[in-house]
Amino acid sequence: MKQLSGACIIGQSGGPSSVINASVLGCVEAALKSPLITKVYGAAHGITGVLDDKLYDLTQEDPAELALLRYTPSSALGSCRYKLKDFLVDDTDYKRILEIFKKYNVRYFFYNGGNDSMDTCSKISSYMAQNGYECNIIGIPKTIDNDLWGTDHCPGYGSAAKYVATTCMELSRDYLVYQDPSIMVIEIMGRNAGWLTAAASLAKKFGMGPDLVYLPEVPFDMASFMEDVAELHKKQGDVMIAVSEGIRDAGGSYISSYFTDTANEKDAFGHSQMGGLAANLANFIKNKLGVKVRGIEFSSIQRCASHVASATDIEEAYMAGKAAFEAAASGISDKMVAFKRAEGPLYKCETVLVDLADTANKEKMVPREWINEKGNGVLPAFAEYALPLIQGETEQPKEGGLPRFAQLKRIVAR
Amino acid sequence: MKQLSGACIIGQSGGPSSVINASVLGCVEAALKSPLITKVYGAAHGITGVLDDKLYDLTQEDPAELALLRYTPSSALGSCRYKLKDFLVDDTDYKRILEIFKKYNVRYFFYNGGNDSMDTCSKISSYMAQNGYECNIIGIPKTIDNDLWGTDHCPGYGSAAKYVATTCMELSRDYLVYQDPSIMVIEIMGRNAGWLTAAASLAKKFGMGPDLVYLPEVPFDMASFMEDVAELHKKQGDVMIAVSEGIRDAGGSYISSYFTDTANEKDAFGHSQMGGLAANLANFIKNKLGVKVRGIEFSSIQRCASHVASATDIEEAYMAGKAAFEAAASGISDKMVAFKRAEGPLYKCETVLVDLADTANKEKMVPREWINEKGNGVLPAFAEYALPLIQGETEQPKEGGLPRFAQLKRIVAR
Repeated sequence: MKQLSGACIIGQSGGPSSVINASVLGCVEAALKSPLITKVYGAAHGITGVLDDKLYDLTQEDPAELALLRYTPSSALGSCRYKLKDFLVDDTDYKRILEIFKKYNVRYFFYNGGNDSMDTCSKISSYMAQNGYECNIIGIPKTIDNDLWGTDHCPGYGSAAKYVATTCMELSRDYLVYQDPSIMVIEIMGRNAGWLTAAASLAKKFGMGPDLVYLPEVPFDMASFMEDVAELHKKQGDVMIAVSEGIRDAGGSYISSYFTDTANEKDAFGHSQMGGLAANLANFIKNKLGVKVRGIEFSSIQRCASHVASATDIEEAYMAGKAAFEAAASGISDKMVAFKRAEGPLYKCETVLVDLADTANKEKMVPREWINEKGNGVLPAFAEYALPLIQGETEQPKEGGLPRFAQLKRIVAR
Repeated sequence: MKQLSGACIIGQSGGPSSVINASVLGCVEAALKSPLITKVYGAAHGITGVLDDKLYDLTQEDPAELALLRYTPSSALGSCRYKLKDFLVDDTDYKRILEIFKKYNVRYFFYNGGNDSMDTCSKISSYMAQNGYECNIIGIPKTIDNDLWGTDHCPGYGSAAKYVATTCMELSRDYLVYQDPSIMVIEIMGRNAGWLTAAASLAKKFGMGPDLVYLPEVPFDMASFMEDVAELHKKQGDVMIAVSEGIRDAGGSYISSYFTDTANEKDAFGHSQMGGLAANLANFIKNKLGVKVRGIEFSSIQRCASHVASATDIEEAYMAGKAAFEAAASGISDKMVAFKRAEGPLYKCETVLVDLADTANKEKMVPREWINEKGNGVLPAFAEYALPLIQGETEQPKEGGLPRFAQLKRIVAR
């Protein structure tokens, strides 16, 4: 463990969240105060900013504007979905990263993202170690999907969950206003893990919300689904349904691929492109039952709805960024900041460190025992887990009745 | 003008809004205090509740729960889209309404809704007058579409506009995070009038927002649209586009009907069913330009997002309901409450009364001179008009981190 003096870089990667900038702020404010740090850089669009030698000099930002990052959604430094190759196969990118690190005397590198970002972080960490370049590298977790391994939960999840539950409550008031029975299908993000879709069930706890909830953790069967819907429709008329975009059948095929071929379009990490499932399922139900069905997709809205962010999530995201810096400054490297929930009835959360290699490319699923037997609902254990994460209201500043987001100068270092 | 003693009924009709219940509350609280009023009823699902003899006895509600109506979205009494026939053609429904009015000694009738609701209100008023039944009838405006004639603006619009502008600001932060150019198409409600879609332009005023805005007021041409998009894409890469669901070509055909036949499905008032336009336009652009395009439909969310309601809108909605009761109690009938904006630089709004017959079935459009010449953007006059309406944040009470909505007992009167 070595205390190094030099510059630091922080980068953001993967899909944005409402609080990913709060983590950057936590890290940057700590770095700006530290006597070890000569310069604080933000990588433009994650690791591609390092490769392109495009670093923002955050030392030149107005601290008051930086402070607004706490309430500004989506990656303020820009994001990427760039996948580094294995350096034993092709080390071109790594050589370039080392070159840039040397150019700016970078001794601290922070990467703020999800599974894939921790993979990037871990690879860079190994390469630097193997090449004898001293640099402390810490991952800062972020994902609305909440699927990072090794942490109780992820910054970004609580705010997205609060949006999902709040909007489901509002929509449940909306779709019920007419006398004629009505069915609503809501599509929620989550390719493999159903954490965010499960949050729809919190609405029901406090009023009205989805009657049926389908997560990717349980194989989805169209015939059973239609039975569930038809049975409830017969019993109560109106039915509200929440489905994860990533529901798959027993053979592993995405249900969305039944209707379109967009699920076969892949991104750089080989992930399928989702969307359109709600509209297609709505149409399917309408044709079967001859009832009014509306499909609603929360789409990107759910990952940037900072106006309804969870205060708990904002503070924990900040705390994660700060903890990352403190760990690195104390000489620790090759770790990801994780959250540990204290035992006992009162919610309390502290940061711990886990090995980067252990978190990279692993996904944490909703435990099967938190899902009901039929696989169409979520059990109370989930609410116990999730409710503390959505507590508290944001104090997002407003201007002219609208959010006042950070306006960074983003001066590129030369 | 007669001061009548008896019961009052309030009903809600048409598509809900975030503040339609605030209007009910304004009316009901005034009625509960009035010595003229023997009973306060809420019609279940608008006029159909009167026809079905299903009236909620609001006198039996807990005043604290009623007070929560100020922050509870969507028609708490239920809504309908029932169209009354002309009573000269078929007076069956009117006879039934009169029967129910007599049964409960109803001397005050308030109807809270949009164009079609004012039509209903006006017809009932005429019928009662022609049949010598003394009853004061007042319409309370409500529509997120803001298209009611005779009023500066409508309760419900400010909150929906605040949601639209806020979400466009958040989405503009989201879709820009990647380096690759990206195009976003946002579909906003508004069948004939573009008021709500125009609100998307407020986002740009305070940060980032749609570059192109298309309202139904200007004929839409697919070729010019693609030219606008391609040109901006070439110039700046990312392009954000807001379209009204109701955009039509010069021949009057809905653009949504180019892609599907849902636009040909009509509701009880002969209105086309919209939706799916964003996804279809996104696909169209993607095929033409070969760029990543995301289509987002705000769908029902925009009309019930009470967590981001405008405080100005909430208070004005309450004021409209209260003014309706006060007018009726002072002996006035056959009017709709309208808003008049004071002259001068400071925003001030007061209620006035307009003839029901003058407002029924008329629609107020965005003035052509507030739209740019090319018909792909909104001019500053619109922001001057709309900004005061979105000011102030809701004080919606929360429970467990989620909205605490009114839970009415809804005891049916017998």
